[in-house]
Amino acid sequence: MSNQKLFNVAVVGATGAVGEQIIGLLEKRNFPIGELKLLSSARSAGTKIMFKGQEHTVEEATPDSFNGIDIALFSAGGDVSKSLAPHAIERGAVCIDNTNAFRMDPNTPLVVPEVNIEKVSEHKGLIANPNCSTIQMVAALKPLQDRYGIARIIVSTYQAVSGAGSRAIDEMLRQTREALEGNDLKPDILPVGSLPVKHQIAFNAIPQIDKFHENGYTLEEMKMVRETKKIMGDESIDVTATCVRIPVVHGHSESVYVELKNDYDLEDVKKLLSDAPGIVLVDDPANQLYPLATEAAGKPDVFVGRLRRDLGSDRGLNMWIVSDNLLKGAAWNAVQIAEYMAHNK
Amino acid sequence: MSNQKLFNVAVVGATGAVGEQIIGLLEKRNFPIGELKLLSSARSAGTKIMFKGQEHTVEEATPDSFNGIDIALFSAGGDVSKSLAPHAIERGAVCIDNTNAFRMDPNTPLVVPEVNIEKVSEHKGLIANPNCSTIQMVAALKPLQDRYGIARIIVSTYQAVSGAGSRAIDEMLRQTREALEGNDLKPDILPVGSLPVKHQIAFNAIPQIDKFHENGYTLEEMKMVRETKKIMGDESIDVTATCVRIPVVHGHSESVYVELKNDYDLEDVKKLLSDAPGIVLVDDPANQLYPLATEAAGKPDVFVGRLRRDLGSDRGLNMWIVSDNLLKGAAWNAVQIAEYMAHNK
Repeated sequence: MSNQKLFNVAVVGATGAVGEQIIGLLEKRNFPIGELKLLSSARSAGTKIMFKGQEHTVEEATPDSFNGIDIALFSAGGDVSKSLAPHAIERGAVCIDNTNAFRMDPNTPLVVPEVNIEKVSEHKGLIANPNCSTIQMVAALKPLQDRYGIARIIVSTYQAVSGAGSRAIDEMLRQTREALEGNDLKPDILPVGSLPVKHQIAFNAIPQIDKFHENGYTLEEMKMVRETKKIMGDESIDVTATCVRIPVVHGHSESVYVELKNDYDLEDVKKLLSDAPGIVLVDDPANQLYPLATEAAGKPDVFVGRLRRDLGSDRGLNMWIVSDNLLKGAAWNAVQIAEYMAHNK
Repeated sequence: MSNQKLFNVAVVGATGAVGEQIIGLLEKRNFPIGELKLLSSARSAGTKIMFKGQEHTVEEATPDSFNGIDIALFSAGGDVSKSLAPHAIERGAVCIDNTNAFRMDPNTPLVVPEVNIEKVSEHKGLIANPNCSTIQMVAALKPLQDRYGIARIIVSTYQAVSGAGSRAIDEMLRQTREALEGNDLKPDILPVGSLPVKHQIAFNAIPQIDKFHENGYTLEEMKMVRETKKIMGDESIDVTATCVRIPVVHGHSESVYVELKNDYDLEDVKKLLSDAPGIVLVDDPANQLYPLATEAAGKPDVFVGRLRRDLGSDRGLNMWIVSDNLLKGAAWNAVQIAEYMAHNK
């Protein structure tokens, strides 16, 4: 493998929760890296990060940071992607963007490798990584779409606090300690850092992730609706979502009702899912086995279980889908895309 | 009111989580009690409980405990109800049973006062109190059923640990402390005390409440399906449920998709719900107001919010329903039934 092509890689948001996972995966997967550039805001610049036994110093991300970069992985918020990705593209980098900035842009492929990896080739310098709650759902539904067609999806989520960043985790743990002591909790981040009203997350369930739209849905819910249609390549799929934050550290769980276009066989569905790449079927009610957030945390797979035929609709199927929101829901999906590009150069 | 008829009342399961709430409500509501008899298993007999400034000693429940009793409130598990309720009825008591023992018995009214209080008059000595997760849902849906008709319900629950009893709460708090210290958690009660496999509830979501049926649904899910049809008096309503335990102490939350039989107006739905007895509408997304388990805990009402039209189906409506599972979901619903009987003697 001495002739293997090497890639100069930039990680933007290197000190964030997702950036940290990306760096860890690049190392673990032995990604063919030439130069590794770790970038952040001015505030976090100077941080030291170890990569393959070498210390790297995080630099402030500027347009010129991308000189000579082949692949830039962005996860520093939508505003950073919007301002810096065009400069990276101009300098010849391909950007894999983990933010909401370009996902619905018709010229930007929105990619979950298990679903639509072929869209990568259509990129114009930028590939968008979908929202965490969308990724795990479409990965699990793709085999059903291919075999039976999908008419409708109704999803309710049970989302981990790590999706709101490390400060939200700190807040939840602090609130939990205070609650156990019977003290005042003083929420100050969740549900949405930039909005005025704060709610307790310790021992609670908050039915708001991100801001509200005028239609009464939150942005997180609308992401699931719009991104699912785009990734699955079918605007006719009806999608409704209710997104809820619960006191879990890592791992989003989802209760999904899916209505197929054709009659299905439940055993065939189980076989399809157990054969599908990236999917692990955990569905053994007799032994009380089903996916759990605590078991999915730290693993790259999407776990599926509680498969059962709907009691009202013959073409309805209920399922429980769990995955680590920082891995398959963010970092691992992005690194999968980077690996595909590296193998197809 | 000196001529007010007084009732001799027995509380079976007086030392349990629900029994405790029932006793508190009988006191707070100034229920017209002649004699109060507090009953339990042999193990808890002898416990002292204060009621209106007087100390009562809990006695072991036996068939003769019901001599002279007018109203017996049962919440000591299905087996106790099955063995003792017939003796209580034989001795002339009317039983209000909070367990699963008789709910689906065709001769037993299953009552949520806001929905079908008129069924009380059909009793043959026993009235069943529905399952907690069912009660709050049908109370919130009743005004919609009356106005528009209901074709279908798809519900995913976020259920509090107190629904599994005080020992489950202790387990969750202990596990949470251990998790914060980074120690081993050793689950030993949840999800189902009598089953062999145990799962961590601290910082997790467990998609199993009660045992599994052969159809892949849990008993809790099947309760929601069957009880909803019976209480709403319409076997044609399609109901599907996914019941999930989350780390919340008190207060069940529910993500409910309901498909109405007729076109509806969202503002009319909001008005119907804000005028409905026992329902509190908390639905102001602009101010980030919606029902929360922590706010519902300790209150008798059913809180409804996040009302929004389904994006796929014109007759579909999504809502978020929260209530204290030990109050409206159990003790308060039972005491409401007792109050109705007292007023209609």
